[in-house]
Amino acid sequence: MKKINIGILGFGTVGGGTYDILIKNRELIERRTGCSYEIKKILVRNPERLKAHGVDSSLATDSARDIIEGDDIDLVVEAIGGTEPATDWMLTALKNGKSVVTPNKAAVAANLHKLKAAAKEGGAEIRIEACVGGGIPALTAITEALSGNEFSEVLGIVNGTTNYILTKMGDEGLPYDEVLKDAQAKGFAEADPTADVEGIDCANKLSILMSLSFDKYVAPEDIPTEGITNISMEDLQRAKEKGCKIKLISKAALDESGHLSYEVKPMELPKSHPLCGVDSEFNAIYITGDAVGEVMFYGKGAGALPTGSAVVGDIISIMKKL
Amino acid sequence: MKKINIGILGFGTVGGGTYDILIKNRELIERRTGCSYEIKKILVRNPERLKAHGVDSSLATDSARDIIEGDDIDLVVEAIGGTEPATDWMLTALKNGKSVVTPNKAAVAANLHKLKAAAKEGGAEIRIEACVGGGIPALTAITEALSGNEFSEVLGIVNGTTNYILTKMGDEGLPYDEVLKDAQAKGFAEADPTADVEGIDCANKLSILMSLSFDKYVAPEDIPTEGITNISMEDLQRAKEKGCKIKLISKAALDESGHLSYEVKPMELPKSHPLCGVDSEFNAIYITGDAVGEVMFYGKGAGALPTGSAVVGDIISIMKKL
Repeated sequence: MKKINIGILGFGTVGGGTYDILIKNRELIERRTGCSYEIKKILVRNPERLKAHGVDSSLATDSARDIIEGDDIDLVVEAIGGTEPATDWMLTALKNGKSVVTPNKAAVAANLHKLKAAAKEGGAEIRIEACVGGGIPALTAITEALSGNEFSEVLGIVNGTTNYILTKMGDEGLPYDEVLKDAQAKGFAEADPTADVEGIDCANKLSILMSLSFDKYVAPEDIPTEGITNISMEDLQRAKEKGCKIKLISKAALDESGHLSYEVKPMELPKSHPLCGVDSEFNAIYITGDAVGEVMFYGKGAGALPTGSAVVGDIISIMKKL
Repeated sequence: MKKINIGILGFGTVGGGTYDILIKNRELIERRTGCSYEIKKILVRNPERLKAHGVDSSLATDSARDIIEGDDIDLVVEAIGGTEPATDWMLTALKNGKSVVTPNKAAVAANLHKLKAAAKEGGAEIRIEACVGGGIPALTAITEALSGNEFSEVLGIVNGTTNYILTKMGDEGLPYDEVLKDAQAKGFAEADPTADVEGIDCANKLSILMSLSFDKYVAPEDIPTEGITNISMEDLQRAKEKGCKIKLISKAALDESGHLSYEVKPMELPKSHPLCGVDSEFNAIYITGDAVGEVMFYGKGAGALPTGSAVVGDIISIMKKL
């Protein structure tokens, strides 16, 4: 049986979730891939975090170099978040021939081309399923099973925080500030919620979706973006009276003449639209192709285990190719 | 650029749809895969059918041997349907080192192990995405992106004919016989609807879903199966009064002790369940994994282009590996 050695950069929510799945489902994964694996090194700021996951402290390192340049590492999970140094580390690992799996949508949206070029240079692979929609395997579907289609439209509910807030405001008639506090208490919103509620996180994800669906790169900062901070109870009430819901939609559409339009914006959806039933922290990607028609992927868009599921799926794809 | 030669067995709905996509989206598919292709031979009973798709009549053959044993064929699309001679032809092609893509759920449900063994023997690949849910890329998701999960439950609405009939009966209060005639007129039901309305088609698909999700083979005839012919207007009305809908569900569930239960049966689903909104000819597969939680895949479960989309997706996967 072939074997790969894995290094993990960062041991927060996703790093920890990925580790837990790789340990719990080892027998199943090794059987399905015909490949065994060992987690060799983990870059961690606070080694106390390792204890909570039962990790032997000898795996800890405080140097990224041990992982991105380490001779004994075949595959790197980048889970530190943020654009830098994450991008720099991924580029180094790829150029060194180590495949990289990442849930880091900000770094990928900003640097997808560079990362792909580095992967080509190093004869390695960069895989990004976890960047959009957490555990929902939409990106792999778009680039594999559906890739015989010319796509005409992508609509996404790809931010769980804002979808949770809009659902609560709409269903329970509670004001924005109150629901945001509740979401923060439940872990569905960050202490600083700006990137979520202003639509920045959505713009990163839409940039990635467009790269894969339309083979066209648009930088996140060039996507017209409106968040949910201006949505009032009156807006939600008016939508309800029309039999609609307001959802924060990331949208890209190709018209007949080949012009691609794109935006992140709260939109009214009728109850009959499949995305209208996507509530609370759930995400969905709804895509239209010339052959398949409309397809929707639905599931949990965030969290340690759902996002870890996508990271592990990418690791498995890499193992299967060995 | 590498190149593969494709042979198509059967030129009915799916064979024709597959051909149309391969011709229409050639530039896009060759760019995405870095591989070119040629359709070399088509086994067709009535060569008149080729004309409707603009196919040069020189591609027609009346001998399957030309394709399954032909030296100039790398990949075979099996689209004749039925268990035999389809299985025999697929086994021959695979043993001859030709990869096979098929939407033939009856043949695959009956012979998945034999087909996999023949693929291994011939150093070829058997791909079956189009067997369940038409264009919906659920099988690839289960075996690739989600395969780090231990699955606990699969629920499917995987037969468009019965879902169309139940939706019409429920929404419009029309009796079974009348709706069936309407479905036949619209092409959503076969002249002989037995395999659909008695749940046999669902049992084939559930057998395949279980093989992939639970690594366990159960022959379709061993799955307790009940169709929709006994559903009365009163049943639908009673469900409606409880805020539910009746759907023909293909279900498999693994309990804590590792026991797998399975059945095809009309079930009442509450409005809050994501599958409840899957109406008319649409299909969906709803699966629960220990890491990802609940995920749902939704789209068109039948038809020339949706099913052709899945066949072409499988062809692309094979081309990408060259």
